[in-house]
Amino acid sequence: MNACVFCRIVAGEAPSTKVYEDDTLCAFLDIRPIATGHTLIIPKTHAAELDDLDADLGAEIFRAGHRLALAMRRGALAADGANLILNDGRAAFQTVPHIHLHVIPRRKGDLFGVTKGFLLRRSHDPAGTAASIRAGLAALDDDNARDIEGTQP
Amino acid sequence: MNACVFCRIVAGEAPSTKVYEDDTLCAFLDIRPIATGHTLIIPKTHAAELDDLDADLGAEIFRAGHRLALAMRRGALAADGANLILNDGRAAFQTVPHIHLHVIPRRKGDLFGVTKGFLLRRSHDPAGTAASIRAGLAALDDDNARDIEGTQP
Ligand SMILES: [Zn+2]
Ligand SMILES: [Zn+2]
Repeated sequence: MNACVFCRIVAGEAPSTKVYEDDTLCAFLDIRPIATGHTLIIPKTHAAELDDLDADLGAEIFRAGHRLALAMRRGALAADGANLILNDGRAAFQTVPHIHLHVIPRRKGDLFGVTKGFLLRRSHDPAGTAASIRAGLAALDDDNARDIEGTQP
Repeated sequence: MNACVFCRIVAGEAPSTKVYEDDTLCAFLDIRPIATGHTLIIPKTHAAELDDLDADLGAEIFRAGHRLALAMRRGALAADGANLILNDGRAAFQTVPHIHLHVIPRRKGDLFGVTKGFLLRRSHDPAGTAASIRAGLAALDDDNARDIEGTQP
């Protein structure tokens, strides 16, 4: 069995609530969210730290984070913003040694600090939360489709 | 005068200690660092939030962050890791309304939480710090040059 829990999630050997997946990366709900919708994006190939991560793949992970942050502002989650956080190395509080980008939706007035939030982590309705984020991604696709139609005569 | 302090930095109308710059983005020391070497990366064109930022430009900003994190592990700063943080929106503690990616070098045992760190911000020897980071970037270039030479017969 693979010793890395995130590699096991990629292989389908460990459970997760996925919100997005493509050939090179995978996004799923953090099992101890600091806010509803807290998502992790990981490369499908194992890379412990940024020193081990291909620069192009890193750029794709962050591109997916950007996109997820926009998705969380749409649909049921109705976030007002997001924290995108990548902790590189144990000295930077990286807990699982497989690179992961946190995307944490924020609402006006939620008032939690990120450090305090990390102490209060609890999960709540992951299936419904993942559905909301996927709906936000679909809404983004609709927006883009409309933009493309709009440019046509 | 431009109302946005980061646009003024890009235009050279406000002072900054730059560590990296290219056609589309610019990296400079945070004037209230939570750790020595704390750097901000911004797009040169104004974008308040991720909703206003071109996806390709976003990917380039994060690519530069990845590269800076590697640079900080090299040379005099000798970081053991880094936090990459992008706060999107006031609800997510974004303070300056021009997108910026924090790259915060970490050392083993520095033991500061990010939230606590933000309360203790102070600047120290910015010129020497920026020189260390630029030396790290140069060391990365040397590594890459050696890698390329290594592949040649
Ligand atoms: Zn792994
Ligand atoms: Zn600006």
